[in-house]
Amino acid sequence: MITYEQALDVLLSQTVPADPARLPLADCLGLTLAGSVTADRDCPPFDRAMMDGYAVRSADVAAAPVELAVLGDQPAGAAPTLVVGPGQAVGISTGAPLPEGADAVVRVENTESAGECRIRVRVAAAAGANVAAAGVDAIRGQTVLAPGTLLTPARLAAAAAVGAAQLWVYPAPRVGLLATGDELVHHTLSPGVAQVRDSTGPMLEAALRRMGVAAIERGGLCRDVEADIRGRLAGLLERNDVVLVTGGVSVGGHDHVPGVVAGLGGQVRFHRVAIKPGGPVLFATADRSGPGTVGAATDPDPRRPRRRYVLALPGNPVSSSVGWLMLGSVLVGRLMGRGQVRPPRILAMCGREVGPAPGRMTLVPARLRPDDKFAGWRVEPVEEYTGSADVFGLARANALIVRPAGADRLARGAVCEVVSLETMMGGLM
Amino acid sequence: MITYEQALDVLLSQTVPADPARLPLADCLGLTLAGSVTADRDCPPFDRAMMDGYAVRSADVAAAPVELAVLGDQPAGAAPTLVVGPGQAVGISTGAPLPEGADAVVRVENTESAGECRIRVRVAAAAGANVAAAGVDAIRGQTVLAPGTLLTPARLAAAAAVGAAQLWVYPAPRVGLLATGDELVHHTLSPGVAQVRDSTGPMLEAALRRMGVAAIERGGLCRDVEADIRGRLAGLLERNDVVLVTGGVSVGGHDHVPGVVAGLGGQVRFHRVAIKPGGPVLFATADRSGPGTVGAATDPDPRRPRRRYVLALPGNPVSSSVGWLMLGSVLVGRLMGRGQVRPPRILAMCGREVGPAPGRMTLVPARLRPDDKFAGWRVEPVEEYTGSADVFGLARANALIVRPAGADRLARGAVCEVVSLETMMGGLM
Repeated sequence: MITYEQALDVLLSQTVPADPARLPLADCLGLTLAGSVTADRDCPPFDRAMMDGYAVRSADVAAAPVELAVLGDQPAGAAPTLVVGPGQAVGISTGAPLPEGADAVVRVENTESAGECRIRVRVAAAAGANVAAAGVDAIRGQTVLAPGTLLTPARLAAAAAVGAAQLWVYPAPRVGLLATGDELVHHTLSPGVAQVRDSTGPMLEAALRRMGVAAIERGGLCRDVEADIRGRLAGLLERNDVVLVTGGVSVGGHDHVPGVVAGLGGQVRFHRVAIKPGGPVLFATADRSGPGTVGAATDPDPRRPRRRYVLALPGNPVSSSVGWLMLGSVLVGRLMGRGQVRPPRILAMCGREVGPAPGRMTLVPARLRPDDKFAGWRVEPVEEYTGSADVFGLARANALIVRPAGADRLARGAVCEVVSLETMMGGLM
Repeated sequence: MITYEQALDVLLSQTVPADPARLPLADCLGLTLAGSVTADRDCPPFDRAMMDGYAVRSADVAAAPVELAVLGDQPAGAAPTLVVGPGQAVGISTGAPLPEGADAVVRVENTESAGECRIRVRVAAAAGANVAAAGVDAIRGQTVLAPGTLLTPARLAAAAAVGAAQLWVYPAPRVGLLATGDELVHHTLSPGVAQVRDSTGPMLEAALRRMGVAAIERGGLCRDVEADIRGRLAGLLERNDVVLVTGGVSVGGHDHVPGVVAGLGGQVRFHRVAIKPGGPVLFATADRSGPGTVGAATDPDPRRPRRRYVLALPGNPVSSSVGWLMLGSVLVGRLMGRGQVRPPRILAMCGREVGPAPGRMTLVPARLRPDDKFAGWRVEPVEEYTGSADVFGLARANALIVRPAGADRLARGAVCEVVSLETMMGGLM
């Protein structure tokens, strides 16, 4: 049994990010940039009016109030044709290029009519006033988005601004799901007296979609029969980059997954991690040829062996949820080229005592909320949580308190580390 | 000009959440529950073995070590048929129902073989040991998910566990997008000398998708011609619940959007908010009949007037991004029935001085990162940010510093409020 930190190290060192692919901008939200995005021209590409008003020579308006002759209008979107000479002005719209001769824009609110084709400028304007100089935001060739950047809406806007209609990104992997267990029925069916509905499938599918994984193969439910598990898993491994298995991963007589994974040529990288819940977890890699899609866009040789990954999680729903969050999301995030793959932790004041964590890192479902008094966060374990099978207790939580292996009891008022289960700090923008 | 808080109040009071619709579980991620989800039977539905081992009578093993006769096996998924009498045990798998007569499970690790069909139990087990009693997680009829719950993967698992294959949720609105401006070309085209690419369209589309809005009508680009804007906006309003317009919303001669909205029967609820950037923003409602989809699933009368919403944002990309985040996401979140719709703020220590915010609430693009010394967050304005047109400066940010209207300069080391632009605290789980 290895520690959680050791398991993370193994997982990260054995996982190779996907080969980059070139995708349309609209498909890149939440992905990580594999190449640079550079400005294709100066931004703004011309001296740009920042306000509606008049393009003027700043020397002319230094002694405002002053009257100027208006030559005409410079609309946005049109190449300038007028030239502003001494004593002259040109009406200008926000976003329009500054006409030749002018070096400043006087806001329309600081002018008034002084007869036909004449205005009075009431306030002086320095050179450059209300003008964004060509290239001030970026010069041609400058990197505006660096490799490794997480593509948020605002960053997609920056790519659009320089005409990067397709981006080199790390594509999301194809993921297959397989739930094992003699007692399971699909959640849309009525279970028999000794049966329960599978809840890990819907959980994992939603969590994968939330990360941006679109290609999810529902491998369905499989009884605890070694040959059945082998057949299903072999097929899922052929067609996917990652297979997430739930159940059958422990050491009992019905736990066939570890043997099946090894029998299929999987290199077991770890089996059992000192984490509670979610400890009976297996991670394996398998290098094989086949129509893997990770990197297919750039790789001309379909026979090149590709690495496939199996993460087998315990069947209890809290265990599989925690295993997904602490290990599965790290695996998928690493394949997607993310820099920040470990679930980020924040500090919070604990509002109620939590028991000790002998021997294993322990995650406790909890409620996290802002606390003005603490000028930070306050967290409390959810009430009536009964353990790793209690999916309803987890549903009442919006965070997990992280107790390091060997930690003593956590006193009320003490500061602890917490992993959020909701996006409480705002959306991706 | 109203304050940001006043604008929020108007926006929330004028916005009616969508009528609930019943959607399949797989389509509910990120939506908000409109009804309750209750347990359809006790959970677990039977006294459930938590470990692989032997079902025993606790009285028999009180004086362990003790030998017991093994009657057979109780697998998971099968109704129990064996009855455990005094001096007897039944092999049992994790997840299996406890046979009649037994009241505890002894872990397999605490037993050893004592001949054919006999085991020796080495450690005593109290009544209830390693057994989850029927109904301990939820009893039949109990609410396991309350109305207003944000549907995370773990909560979808809870719904699946009780067989809620479809959920009553507030569906996402249909949203139309329209970018106005004579200088704009589509981001896939080469702009002329006085033109720039539209970056607000890709930004808004991605931000909407991130919130779970799938039905997005790309209304395209529109020149600053009143009749054109009217025609496009009228069509978008017929087919959508919300229309987001960018550009043409200020008070210049080319700013036709306010007049067009009023001319189409829109009730302008506010125009101009004391926020920088993003101040020239207009919010209007229009009640009209038509094939709106919000609530269509439950509403039998397609002629019933439905409320439509127009939010017109400034055309500069930082202004439109901030306007979206501070007002647009609130509007859409409210329509989607979310309880937490205001962008949540966190406290951070400011690592570099920020200027004063005279008159208007000011949002400053910044880098936010954990700071161990502060036991919290540290934030610094991004360097070389030139203002509301600088989409590259915004792209370098992962947060906005929020300066209240009238705030004095923010000193280095002072604590300030910040809105995160990334999901730095972990994913939705």
